[in-house]
Amino acid sequence: MNKLPKLFITDIDGVWTDGGMYYDQTGNEWKKFNTSDSAGVLFLRYLDIPFAIITSEKTEIVRRRAKKLKVEYLYDGISDKLSVAEQLCSELGVTLNETAFIGDDLNDIPLLRKVGFPAVPANAPDYVKKYSSLKLTKKGGEGAFREFVEVILNQNNLMEDVLNKHFDYLEEQKNR
Amino acid sequence: MNKLPKLFITDIDGVWTDGGMYYDQTGNEWKKFNTSDSAGVLFLRYLDIPFAIITSEKTEIVRRRAKKLKVEYLYDGISDKLSVAEQLCSELGVTLNETAFIGDDLNDIPLLRKVGFPAVPANAPDYVKKYSSLKLTKKGGEGAFREFVEVILNQNNLMEDVLNKHFDYLEEQKNR
Amino acid sequence: MNKLPKLFITDIDGVWTDGGMYYDQTGNEWKKFNTSDSAGVLFLRYLDIPFAIITSEKTEIVRRRAKKLKVEYLYDGISDKLSVAEQLCSELGVTLNETAFIGDDLNDIPLLRKVGFPAVPANAPDYVKKYSSLKLTKKGGEGAFREFVEVILNQNNLMEDVLNKHFDYLEEQKNR
Amino acid sequence: MNKLPKLFITDIDGVWTDGGMYYDQTGNEWKKFNTSDSAGVLFLRYLDIPFAIITSEKTEIVRRRAKKLKVEYLYDGISDKLSVAEQLCSELGVTLNETAFIGDDLNDIPLLRKVGFPAVPANAPDYVKKYSSLKLTKKGGEGAFREFVEVILNQNNLMEDVLNKHFDYLEEQKNR
Repeated sequence: MNKLPKLFITDIDGVWTDGGMYYDQTGNEWKKFNTSDSAGVLFLRYLDIPFAIITSEKTEIVRRRAKKLKVEYLYDGISDKLSVAEQLCSELGVTLNETAFIGDDLNDIPLLRKVGFPAVPANAPDYVKKYSSLKLTKKGGEGAFREFVEVILNQNNLMEDVLNKHFDYLEEQKNR
Repeated sequence: MNKLPKLFITDIDGVWTDGGMYYDQTGNEWKKFNTSDSAGVLFLRYLDIPFAIITSEKTEIVRRRAKKLKVEYLYDGISDKLSVAEQLCSELGVTLNETAFIGDDLNDIPLLRKVGFPAVPANAPDYVKKYSSLKLTKKGGEGAFREFVEVILNQNNLMEDVLNKHFDYLEEQKNR
Repeated sequence: MNKLPKLFITDIDGVWTDGGMYYDQTGNEWKKFNTSDSAGVLFLRYLDIPFAIITSEKTEIVRRRAKKLKVEYLYDGISDKLSVAEQLCSELGVTLNETAFIGDDLNDIPLLRKVGFPAVPANAPDYVKKYSSLKLTKKGGEGAFREFVEVILNQNNLMEDVLNKHFDYLEEQKNR
Repeated sequence: MNKLPKLFITDIDGVWTDGGMYYDQTGNEWKKFNTSDSAGVLFLRYLDIPFAIITSEKTEIVRRRAKKLKVEYLYDGISDKLSVAEQLCSELGVTLNETAFIGDDLNDIPLLRKVGFPAVPANAPDYVKKYSSLKLTKKGGEGAFREFVEVILNQNNLMEDVLNKHFDYLEEQKNR
């Protein structure tokens, strides 16, 4: 097994957020993202690793966040995450065994069981956590997704590489 | 006494939330729910156990949350929670002794004292906590309601049952 | 010195909130209150102890919160809190020495130094905390105000009294 | 080297906030500031030390916060923070070595490496933290900026000075 995944997939609620859903009196709704996680998306882009969001909720909130971070693949309103992941793997010519996925709750278990690189945030229930091979220290909304990406990049000695790519990018910005 | 309640009732502020009430400049208002608690509602539905919200606040916020989670019984703007619970018990043909209730503050005490399965979140005041037979580890808004449901299902060896029911449901979704 | 204050005054930001000020793109603003603190206001009402908010901010947010909790005296947009408190004391025929005040920051120090019952939330800076005679365990926004009221009521053996008054009130509701 | 910086610069997201970005369904966005940090800005004003915000995000949110706190220099939408800081230093006739800067993430590293007084909040990643000479105890959004200013003022025995200036100001308000 190659130690570097060829595809990263993330759940949203409970991973990019602390599970919080803010409701108001008018029918509007809020989620709180953490800018810290955006570096995880950036690192994957530097390494040309495709990245997908698969979430059961269907909101403009997530669509806007995905657009802001230029996420390539966004699947929302999905109850059967495993099938969607299988289809994406097929399109991209990768296997589930080559796929990394972070999710935190019941609906994530079928996909967590099948991917080669499963992870859950620190605050997931034990009956979900048992399907994770990684022990993350961050809770959802605290940068658990970024930690997930960094742990895997560190296992592959790629952190210095992506940091240098980012410093080169900043240097270019400076010289323009 | 049957160890499995025949009715579950929950308070909202301080149980499904951390007690936070967000006000703005225009008269609108917010509450922050935790998607984690929605699994508690789901587990009760799998077991055909009726479920009610009784809250002293009267907001569209809670009505929308109840609608989203398909909650059967919603009583809002209620100061006398005990009478409402008694009437619901009567309608459903169950007793208060067969009822589970989680609340966190003063107005919940009369009902906590009468139900067979009283619980409070970890952060409730001591003079409320003393009416609870269960020691929950989660605070309001952190999934205390879900923990309450799971503790009782575990006491009845029903957790594996509801998890399997949920995996079957996900499997059906996959095969459609 | 009478151990029971004849007037309670509270600051808002950092006491009833964690100091958080939520800004959006349109000029609107939010504060997050904690419903837990409302019991502190209720206890004072049961004891007929007058209660005032004095805050340097001037927002509809606080006015609405004060209205919801039926706060008698609200002074907002106040930089000189000591003078306002002195004037209120004079109106009510009480002294600053008979007054309880909880504040958390620089602008609260002049008043903290003069009142008989000064308190600060657990997270106040040390150079503010040193003017407090009470050690509260709660931070602003976690119910520090309620804790302040309860500590003083407990010192006067009045907690059971106000709790019973509240249970009587709930009982009356039931019998109507 | 003079121990008192002649210019203070701060990042916003992850320093004045916990990194949280609140999205809703309509395209609006929120940040949560902490009123505690406003005292840091005030202290610098009492000492006539120029102060700048340099942030990569470009939002009305930050512009309004800067306006509220009467921040002199606001640069938003900036990816190359080092160049902007160099230009501001040049305008003000100070060097980067005389400049204090607090930032928390990748894009802050080039500037953190060049200033004489670099700092990061307690929750910054280790590969950012290593460029900081100060160990702050507060996380972003908890008052890390204020702590940064206070640590440096304490090192220069200036805290009592600014506190007295503030008490004089409050006294003047009283006597008007």
